[in-house]
Order: sequence, then C-alpha cells, then structure tokens
Amino acid sequence: MPVKLIENGYGKQAVRLVTVRRGPERHELQDVTVGIRFEGDFAAAYTEGDNQGVFPTDTMKNTVYALAAEHPFDDIEDFGLALTDHFLKSSPRASSVRVDLTQHLWEPIEAGGAVHPHAFRQAGSERRIAQVTRDRQGARVLAGLEDLVVMKTAKSAFEGFPRDRYTTLPETADRILATAVQATWRYSRPHVAWGRFWREVRQVLLQTFAEHDSNSVQHTLYAMGEAVLETVDVEEIHLTMPNRHHIPVDLRPFGMENRNEIFVATPEPYGLIEGTVRRG
Amino acid sequence: MPVKLIENGYGKQAVRLVTVRRGPERHELQDVTVGIRFEGDFAAAYTEGDNQGVFPTDTMKNTVYALAAEHPFDDIEDFGLALTDHFLKSSPRASSVRVDLTQHLWEPIEAGGAVHPHAFRQAGSERRIAQVTRDRQGARVLAGLEDLVVMKTAKSAFEGFPRDRYTTLPETADRILATAVQATWRYSRPHVAWGRFWREVRQVLLQTFAEHDSNSVQHTLYAMGEAVLETVDVEEIHLTMPNRHHIPVDLRPFGMENRNEIFVATPEPYGLIEGTVRRG
Amino acid sequence: MPVKLIENGYGKQAVRLVTVRRGPERHELQDVTVGIRFEGDFAAAYTEGDNQGVFPTDTMKNTVYALAAEHPFDDIEDFGLALTDHFLKSSPRASSVRVDLTQHLWEPIEAGGAVHPHAFRQAGSERRIAQVTRDRQGARVLAGLEDLVVMKTAKSAFEGFPRDRYTTLPETADRILATAVQATWRYSRPHVAWGRFWREVRQVLLQTFAEHDSNSVQHTLYAMGEAVLETVDVEEIHLTMPNRHHIPVDLRPFGMENRNEIFVATPEPYGLIEGTVRRG
Amino acid sequence: MPVKLIENGYGKQAVRLVTVRRGPERHELQDVTVGIRFEGDFAAAYTEGDNQGVFPTDTMKNTVYALAAEHPFDDIEDFGLALTDHFLKSSPRASSVRVDLTQHLWEPIEAGGAVHPHAFRQAGSERRIAQVTRDRQGARVLAGLEDLVVMKTAKSAFEGFPRDRYTTLPETADRILATAVQATWRYSRPHVAWGRFWREVRQVLLQTFAEHDSNSVQHTLYAMGEAVLETVDVEEIHLTMPNRHHIPVDLRPFGMENRNEIFVATPEPYGLIEGTVRRG
Repeated sequence: MPVKLIENGYGKQAVRLVTVRRGPERHELQDVTVGIRFEGDFAAAYTEGDNQGVFPTDTMKNTVYALAAEHPFDDIEDFGLALTDHFLKSSPRASSVRVDLTQHLWEPIEAGGAVHPHAFRQAGSERRIAQVTRDRQGARVLAGLEDLVVMKTAKSAFEGFPRDRYTTLPETADRILATAVQATWRYSRPHVAWGRFWREVRQVLLQTFAEHDSNSVQHTLYAMGEAVLETVDVEEIHLTMPNRHHIPVDLRPFGMENRNEIFVATPEPYGLIEGTVRRG
Repeated sequence: MPVKLIENGYGKQAVRLVTVRRGPERHELQDVTVGIRFEGDFAAAYTEGDNQGVFPTDTMKNTVYALAAEHPFDDIEDFGLALTDHFLKSSPRASSVRVDLTQHLWEPIEAGGAVHPHAFRQAGSERRIAQVTRDRQGARVLAGLEDLVVMKTAKSAFEGFPRDRYTTLPETADRILATAVQATWRYSRPHVAWGRFWREVRQVLLQTFAEHDSNSVQHTLYAMGEAVLETVDVEEIHLTMPNRHHIPVDLRPFGMENRNEIFVATPEPYGLIEGTVRRG
Repeated sequence: MPVKLIENGYGKQAVRLVTVRRGPERHELQDVTVGIRFEGDFAAAYTEGDNQGVFPTDTMKNTVYALAAEHPFDDIEDFGLALTDHFLKSSPRASSVRVDLTQHLWEPIEAGGAVHPHAFRQAGSERRIAQVTRDRQGARVLAGLEDLVVMKTAKSAFEGFPRDRYTTLPETADRILATAVQATWRYSRPHVAWGRFWREVRQVLLQTFAEHDSNSVQHTLYAMGEAVLETVDVEEIHLTMPNRHHIPVDLRPFGMENRNEIFVATPEPYGLIEGTVRRG
Repeated sequence: MPVKLIENGYGKQAVRLVTVRRGPERHELQDVTVGIRFEGDFAAAYTEGDNQGVFPTDTMKNTVYALAAEHPFDDIEDFGLALTDHFLKSSPRASSVRVDLTQHLWEPIEAGGAVHPHAFRQAGSERRIAQVTRDRQGARVLAGLEDLVVMKTAKSAFEGFPRDRYTTLPETADRILATAVQATWRYSRPHVAWGRFWREVRQVLLQTFAEHDSNSVQHTLYAMGEAVLETVDVEEIHLTMPNRHHIPVDLRPFGMENRNEIFVATPEPYGLIEGTVRRG
C-alpha cells in the first residue's frame, strides 16, 4: 500500500541558558529557555533511516550556548534572530527554522536602601516570550508574554446571555474577573526597540484590564487588544485568557449572607477565551 | 484607527466527568476530561460587550453532565459526536464546535483469582483521546492516545549525521530509545468499531516500536505510522515523539568502564520529533 | 546575642539512575530516582564556612552511579543498604545517612504473542519506594509504594457523623471511594525476599480495598493495614489515603434524576486520612 | 493476631478561599489555601467504622468559609488562631488541630501613575505561610514563606571540601548560587504585629542572602538565620534551601573560553540544605 510522509518537523526543546555579564557597576542576568524546530527536506531520515541531512538536536543545543557566548544580547528577539540565521546557514536541508524563547524575569534585590549589584529575586511567574520564524525569504518576529496573572474585584459583569434547558448560571452585575493573560503580537516594523516596546505593551494590557468596564472576558480581551494597537506600533495581537472562576460561597445554610465577599477559587473547569485583533 | 477582530473562539476546558453503569455482573466506569471550543459569529461580544449570542461556558459544562446521563456511551468518539451535534443545534451563532476528550483508563482489580466487579485500578498515565470537530456540513473524528511511555534498550542507533564546529555528539550504534508517544489518527470511514480499532492501532504502535531496527526517532516514528496504515483502516496518522535522552555515565574518572549499562535519565533538554503519514 | 545551630542536614535529591543488564534471554531494566541525606557533625560548615568535613553532594551523585555499576541490584532495598554503608564509611563526620529510592516500574511490551526481550512500557504512575536509614549502630529499611490509584463504585458509605451549624454534607450509604494509596512498612525481620514480599503486600492492599465494606476512608485504611499485618511478615505499616471526592451531579435543574451514575471528579479540596497499624 | 492503631490523623487539604473587603477607597484581597488536620480520639472510626466522633472534613471546609465571613482578617496567623479555636471547641474528640495557611500574594496594578483601587496583579510565585497548632493547653504559631527564588552571581564559592575516589567536582571560588528559600520561624512572643514582623524577616533574609560572602549554601543559610534572630524578635527559624545548580558550559570544544558567563540551569539533581537556628 502506498504511504507517504506529508509533514515533518523536529528540534530541541527546553534548552536552559543563563548568562551573566559582569559589568563594573552591576551584573546583568539573562535566564532563557529556548526551543528550536526545523522543517525542511528531512524525509529520507523518516523513510530510509538516512541521517545524512539530519542536523542533530544535540548540536542545536550546543549552538545556543556557543552563540550566547559570541553574541551577548539584551533582548530575546535579537537572540532568536541570530539563532535562526545561524541555523539556516548551517543546515542546507532546512527550509524553515522556528525558535521559541521564554525569558524568566529577575530583578535586583533591594538591600540597605540600594539596588544590589549582583543579587537577584525572581520577579514572578510571568514570563516574556518571543518567537522567531525564518525561512529562505526572511524572518518574522512575534513578541509576547505569558502567565501575567491578574484579578479585578469590581467592574465585571456577565449578563444578557441566552438560556436553554441546561442553563443554571445566574446573571451577575458584579463578579470577580481573574485570568492569566497570554499574549503574542507582531510589531508594525521588522525591528523596534524590543525592550521598550515590550514594556509599553505590557503596561497597556495591565492598565486596560484594570480600567475596563467588563461585560465579559471577551469584551475585556478585545479592549486590551484594541488599546495596544492604538497605543503602540503593533500590527496584530493575539490574546488567550482563561476565565479562572471565583464562585461566591452560599452561606445561607449557615444563616449568613454573602455580600459578594467570600469566594472559592476553582481550578477546573475553566473558561478559555481567545481572539486576534489587527489593524484594518 | 480602524481595528478589527479577525479571529475568535471560546469554550470550557477541564470538565471532569465520571460515569458508572451498574450492571448486574459488573460496574462499568468512564472517566473523561472534556474540553469544548466554539467558533462562529461572536464578534459582538468582543467589540460591543453584547452577550445575546454567547452560549455560556457554564451551560457547556452542564450539558456534558446532562448528555452523559441521557446518552450513556461506550466510546468517547460517540460522546463527542453527540455533544457537538447538540451544541450546534443549541447555538445558532456557532459555525463550528470542537470537543476534545481525554479518557483516563481504569482496569478491574484482580482479587482472589477473579476480576472484581466494582473495584478498579488506574491503568497508568497513558490516556485515550478523541477530538470531534463539527460544522454545519458534518463532523470529523480524530482518535488517539497520549503519554504512552516506552523504552527500548537495543536496536537503536544514531549515526551518519552531519557535523559542524559545534557538534560534540558521538555516533552511537547502540543507545537507549525512550519516548512518550502521542498519536492522533483519522479512520478511513466516518464510523468504525471505535474501541476495537483503537486497541488495534495501539498494539501496532507498541509492537512496531519494539521490533523496529531504529536509525533515529524519525525512522521509528515513520515505521510506526506506516505499520498502522498497513494494518488498520486508518487514513492518516500524526505522531509526536519526544526523545527522552538517557546519557551513558562516564565512569572512567572512577577507574571503571561503562559497558553501556549505567545511564542518567535527563528531563531537559529533549528532542522533539513529529511527522504525519498518509495513504496516498 | 548568642545563637546556635540546633539541627542540620543536607544531601542530594533527584539523582536519576537507569541501569540495563543485558542477559542472553532478555534485558533487565532498573529505573530509580535516589535522594540522599546526611546528618552529623557539620556545624562548622554552617557557622564558620569551613568545608573540611562536607562530603560534597556532587560526590553523592557520582557514588550512586559508581555503586550501581559495581553492585548490580535486583531490589532497591539492597541498593539502599549498599549506598548507606558506603556513605557512612566514606564520611567520618556523618552520624546518620538516609537514602530514599523511588522506582519507576516498566514491563516488557507484548508483541506477536510473546514478551519482547528489550522493549518496555511504563506500567503506570504507581511507584515502588524504599527508605534506608543507617547510623553507626545499624540500618533500618522501610519498603513502600505510592500513587497506587484505586476507586470503588460500591460498598462505600459515610453515615452517622456528627453535625453542627456548618454541616451540609448529606449522609450517604453508597458513594464512590477513590484514592491514591501511599504506604510504607517495616518487615518483621531485617532481611526478607524484598521483591516477593513487596508484591504480596501490594496485592493484599489492592484486594482488601476492593472487598472491604467501607464506612469511611479511615475504616478501609485500617482494614488494609490490618490485612497486611495478618498476611505478610510486616511489623508496622503507615498508610496515607487522600479522599478524591466524586460528587454526584445535581441533574434536577435539567428535569432529570441522577441515579448515582453521573459524577464530577474534583481535584480540590480533598480529604487526607492517615494511620499507622502495628503488631501489638 | 493482635494489631493496633498507634497513630492517626485526618483533615481537609487545599481549601481555596478568596475574600474581598470593599472599602470606600480600595478593595482588600485575601487569597489563601487552607489545610486542616485533626488528631485525637478517633480510633473507633478506623477499627470499628464508627463515625460518631468524626467531625466531617466537609464541615471543616464549610467552616473556613463561614469563619472568614464572620471574622474578616488582616493576617493569616489570626485566621489560623480563630479556626483552631473553633475546631477544638466544636470537636470534643480532637486533642490537637493544626491549620496550614498559604497566602498567594497580590499587589494593586499601577495605572496612569496611580495605584488602582480594585485591580490586582499576582506578585510572584513566592507565598507567605503560617502554621497554627492548638491543643487543649494552648496554641503555637509558626510564620514563614516559601518559593522565594533568589540568585547571586558573585561572592559565592565552594572550596576545601574532602575528596574521595568518586569526587570529580572542581573547587570554585566564583560560582552562581541560586535557591528557592523556604523558611518557618517562631516569634519570641505569642502575639506580634504579624504583618510588619513578617515583612521585616523577609527583608533580612533577602538582604543577608545578597550581601553574604558565601563559602557554601550551609554557610549562607546560617548567616540568614542568624541575621533574623539578631534583628527581629524571633526565637527560632528553620531554613530549607535547595541548591539549584548552574553549571558553566564547557565551550572549549567550540574553540572558545567560558569566562564564567555561560551557564546551563539544571533542574535535577539538586542539593538540599537544611538547618535550624535558635537563640541560646
């Protein structure tokens, strides 16, 4: 029976890189997890077991460390551009290389009223991310963040939705809205001041989440995306926002009233809302 | 500035369902995690905060339990077909509904030489999965499995790969090959005996993994996919296989030789190999 | 101000060891995670920064691999005895060494009606564990298992408990009982046929769980412990059993009745029940 | 064969509580996970299946929500004192009740140059913890924190340790020191200004970690504990600090030198160092 390989890809995941630049005033720390994925003319490896063209994933890992040593970087976007450029040059069989970068954020410890020059605290679970995809025509950069955990305790409602025989959810004009924002966006120009722009997008996302008068997660998600496009030089943004439900506890069996003050945070099930907003 | 929503979707994830059918001879147990995702004409919720057409994710959850009560099922594929059918009928705005089902596997406890009628042991981390996507034209069913963790300690090599200045990996004619297989496949016909076919595919994957003379993960992945297409009525199969590296420990500093017997299992980094094989 | 170190301990955790013995008929696989903890006269390291007596945790790790090469083992209890013996001899400052061993279980793949000689499938999330603690007087061995996930759908009740103003739980004569058993036990003699005894204890735990007419998790926990002591040469057993609640879904809002068939499995909160049973 | 229950305990874990106090100026948020454990005269439940004295774990959960509504709290220590007091009064069979409280930390979002009154960002993975244990004589309070992830890139060495035939670790005068501090402490007085004291201890831990000239993790752990005792009214502190190894990458195979700048962060194995420091 004729059988064919119609799609393939391979690479290395979870390459953990930490770099330290030891400046005279202070140390600079980069803490990044890198994933690499090659696509291209690798069918012979699958169908014939012929490894002639198979750039080893172990070499991918080594290259991350070698290039980090040769090309110190301030922004993960630049490191992704350097890596993908190197990989395409080094592997003639590769038609496209994608590098995913996840940056763990550290901030200097404050000690004795000053910022310490070489001691750091991990700033939280939030991570800066970037994805660089390069083929023989050029590169495409996505910037982003993930696990930005936020909650608002006012100005969030969910009303006016349709009901059927299985609907039990009460309408509410005042609920907790909690989520872990994941966002990826594409800038309007191929190169920008990556770090400054990233901080601007993040701040617009936070501020819009805080200030929006929310009718639903969808409504706030769109407002956040729209505000980014209106404020920063971003062409398109994709947002994923789980709805981490906080359910008011029914205190009536205890002879008490819950004045929207006591909640149980539930890990599952959870809503999951997505959307992409683009200039148009 | 004109801005538009170019893509959206939402739903409920991690709906945990356990059903018990209490037969005269034995109890039958289903343990499934369900995820639901709607796409369609929901833009007004995002852009206007208008919830008129927003089928609530809480109702999605309720529907899982209600339909499980009304339509007991033997196979998750059938339950996914029933759910998607119901959702499309119940939500005029939805153009497409996807349901992901993850089945946790239990087997009866053996006690006193017999199979116990109502006590069960979880069979392992391996899970049976299915994905049903339905639009106004019809439904598409994918079957699959995930976290099928396997290892072979012979007949696995990786040699003949290209080397560059960053390559340090030695060639090896005899290495450990360990992975956690994730596979999804589409049958050649819209309805088959879901359970029997699933067990056949699983057995072919296991047997081919065991017996293959492997030049690489790619090589074995393809052999596994090819064997499934040649044996079962499957049209297309997608396989994802992480390479869980087992590194021989260098015992020479201790005055000893490692005769390919002592390994460190490393969680990261790891290779990740994918491929899709289709009849053609 | 006078300050003193009143307690200290240190070691290496998560040492991942895989060994392969390549017999003529079949390969034998051991997959163990090892943790090591030293106690003793190490105060100078803490208070003075004096490392003279500090056996390095990196050497602990190396020793695991070296001893595994020198002393192939069938049972993790024996490996723990060898490791603790070596460590006490190698570190004069150590007064006591504890080694925790967690064995990941693999079984041969069945292919073509036969058991494959060198291909394996991970048997599940269940793990065999052992803890060996040795001081200058001698060694103590605990055997055990963890994450043995079981469920029974009949013969489980919870009734007759006290009620106060905050009690809302209904009494039930027929509920699902699900748990992940963790058990550690001490044999009546310092050396036994570790593997055979371990399998016997495990089987008694499973069988008693299945057959017991349960009034509560406590009740079944004790019955399981008692049965082990009555059947195997075990002196004492400690059991920890979380109560993984399965809540009947209220289907009445949908105009349906739940005949104890439809449940939601909830990850949190969960009950946690412990007890130790000893011959006496 | 005579068999006896020599130890028992039970309770409810992972009770998730979120409270909102809606002040005129701003909302105050508490996000706590509560675990409860009873010890006492519960043997009849185990040995006889007699539930007469078994305070239900479901009532424990309800009580968390009811008491949170009746007694709004600023500090988890106070909430733990109220809960244990209530439980001992409500369960005559209980001889001792322990409550573990884990507080997830949120801080107001800054928007438009001001602190937002009802929108919050999760401050990180770090958590404030408390443990209150109460018996019929009185209560004992431990305060603490966990997952305070810190790293220093200078002033950390590990030298002068003993070597044996399995030692390969090079001495180093300049290594990365990274850890996730877990600390629990007991104040010198039964009641203190919980929140202010907690922040003081945390700051001393951070500052001492940053400034210490470290010969080992042990050395820094002790310095941190000592500094807390010397600065805050703390009687005793227990510290647990995993050594999250950052290994310099060997760049010589690539014709490069690693000037202590390029590291691989490794999740396992890891060192684990503990110690308790007390006024004396």
